[in-house]
Amino acid sequence: MSKPYVLGIDIGGTNTVFGIVDARGAVIASSSIKTRKHNNITDYIDELHTEIIRMLEQNDAVDKIHGIGIGAPNANYFTGIIEDGVNLPWPTPIPLAQLVSDKFGIPCAITNDANAAAIGEMTYGAARGLKDFIMITLGTGVGSGIVINGQMVYGHDGFAGELGHVIVKRNNGRLCGCGRAGCLETYCSATGVARTAREFLEIRPEDSLLRNIPIEEITSKDVYEAAISGDKLAQEIFEYTGTILGEAFADFTVFSSPEAIILFGGLAKSGELLLKPIRTAMEKNMLGVFKGKVKVLLSELKEADAAVLGASALGWEAKPMVTIVPPAVTPGNTIQA
Amino acid sequence: MSKPYVLGIDIGGTNTVFGIVDARGAVIASSSIKTRKHNNITDYIDELHTEIIRMLEQNDAVDKIHGIGIGAPNANYFTGIIEDGVNLPWPTPIPLAQLVSDKFGIPCAITNDANAAAIGEMTYGAARGLKDFIMITLGTGVGSGIVINGQMVYGHDGFAGELGHVIVKRNNGRLCGCGRAGCLETYCSATGVARTAREFLEIRPEDSLLRNIPIEEITSKDVYEAAISGDKLAQEIFEYTGTILGEAFADFTVFSSPEAIILFGGLAKSGELLLKPIRTAMEKNMLGVFKGKVKVLLSELKEADAAVLGASALGWEAKPMVTIVPPAVTPGNTIQA
Repeated sequence: MSKPYVLGIDIGGTNTVFGIVDARGAVIASSSIKTRKHNNITDYIDELHTEIIRMLEQNDAVDKIHGIGIGAPNANYFTGIIEDGVNLPWPTPIPLAQLVSDKFGIPCAITNDANAAAIGEMTYGAARGLKDFIMITLGTGVGSGIVINGQMVYGHDGFAGELGHVIVKRNNGRLCGCGRAGCLETYCSATGVARTAREFLEIRPEDSLLRNIPIEEITSKDVYEAAISGDKLAQEIFEYTGTILGEAFADFTVFSSPEAIILFGGLAKSGELLLKPIRTAMEKNMLGVFKGKVKVLLSELKEADAAVLGASALGWEAKPMVTIVPPAVTPGNTIQA
Repeated sequence: MSKPYVLGIDIGGTNTVFGIVDARGAVIASSSIKTRKHNNITDYIDELHTEIIRMLEQNDAVDKIHGIGIGAPNANYFTGIIEDGVNLPWPTPIPLAQLVSDKFGIPCAITNDANAAAIGEMTYGAARGLKDFIMITLGTGVGSGIVINGQMVYGHDGFAGELGHVIVKRNNGRLCGCGRAGCLETYCSATGVARTAREFLEIRPEDSLLRNIPIEEITSKDVYEAAISGDKLAQEIFEYTGTILGEAFADFTVFSSPEAIILFGGLAKSGELLLKPIRTAMEKNMLGVFKGKVKVLLSELKEADAAVLGASALGWEAKPMVTIVPPAVTPGNTIQA
């Protein structure tokens, strides 16, 4: 009588999405609440608990949850804590795994959203059967989840895999939200593409459909739509973006020699428009021994389900929480009871 | 009656050094032969076998060898093969693990020299007790061995950890032996330091002790000696080198969040002259969450013993070799009998 379901919870800056998932990755039911409704983390967890219990009751799943997996910004797998410096409405650090596990009476594991996406992809998506791959999430920022030898890479402190903050322009790089300059995500996130559009439009003389949009309002979606309409400048913006990504991917390859790099998130939906320059630049910059070996793939998870699926996959490995141990001593977030 | 010793063999471009090592890392005996004496790999292995048997007999160790570990350029742990593109006098690929294992009747495992150094450091040196660290070897080139969660990172094809070939100068970078330009090792190897010296001496007007040496003959050792004699230009060459290394180390950290980066090889003997600018540049370029967390250490292995010790540590995990399997299928170099 092992329990057949897990709960996946994805805490985003705007919405918190949650769902019941079975062992084959089918989302049995899902729902959401507003992340920012409560200034107090206890009230937020109370509402989350009420809504989830309601969903469990409606699906005859109350005693059938093996574990809870949560994906959230800056969530540390080792400590179960959401650390400082994150765009959420509650004071940090937040001992989230402990709070949720206490409230629900169910084991809970947490990790950051990009790691959750990687675990979801490995469990249910394009990375099934792969032991060495890198997940790159191209959203408002650039996140990453790295899997080596079948294991998620957490590093000695739980924060490994911040590839959006590799510095790709050492001189005169764009200012990044992290306080440094030249980070990959300032060029290759959705926001980065919009920045490139503004830069190109200011500096270059060509006509472009993008000139019909007030320059400060241009989004990566506008650039995408212009590019598929045949707009030359918009297409060059994607070439510029893909080239920087491909150059970075060649550098990532000498580190962990992945079998595939998998793209996820809004910008990944640009498909070949982005994949083509990525593959060209990656191969052009690739160390000989790796040439032609590394696949660049798109996520196979439906975006609507992906966040919940990724988080839920972590629920299978959640352990009962007794006490928090320091990360350097034991690479798990709990001592087993 | 488990066997108390391992054999470590380090195949360098000039010398092949080998030794008998016990479980505590004591080198019982060691010797060497010339790598380039034979144009035929079979003759080379015959001589190696003769010399090693002689050493084993002299030390009453003939039936006491648990396994053989070999460190060699481009040696692939998964396949047991020395792959193409390497500065050795025999045609490649060379099925080295199979040849040595057949000749000696003892299980043999091979890996590249930087990985061997990392395994040695983890088993006997500065990385004892560390589960997440990066070994950087600063010799003629720049090599690396990456350990994550206590495991050597081999990647999906056995070639991971080529950090000397991360591109640190995207524009107008120095030509690298790998055929690309701007690789870390063109700046930060011993050879790279000599190149920097030549560049500085040509471009800059200052006086320097280095001007007493014919410019094409300057070595990193000359630069070191001038620097400790107080030569300003030579000191700036070390600052330049250390700064590029420190910037690269900050990027490596966002990948795997290591507890330490450990330096090994000739250039590492420069000590604080190199460590100081490395640490300064690393912290200056470090993503906030990692600031102050990553130690930069020097290898604790004696250089004379290190190559043999590193290779020998691999001997403990060598398995009897039956047949070679493709790397993508099984992440071990052998099917166990």
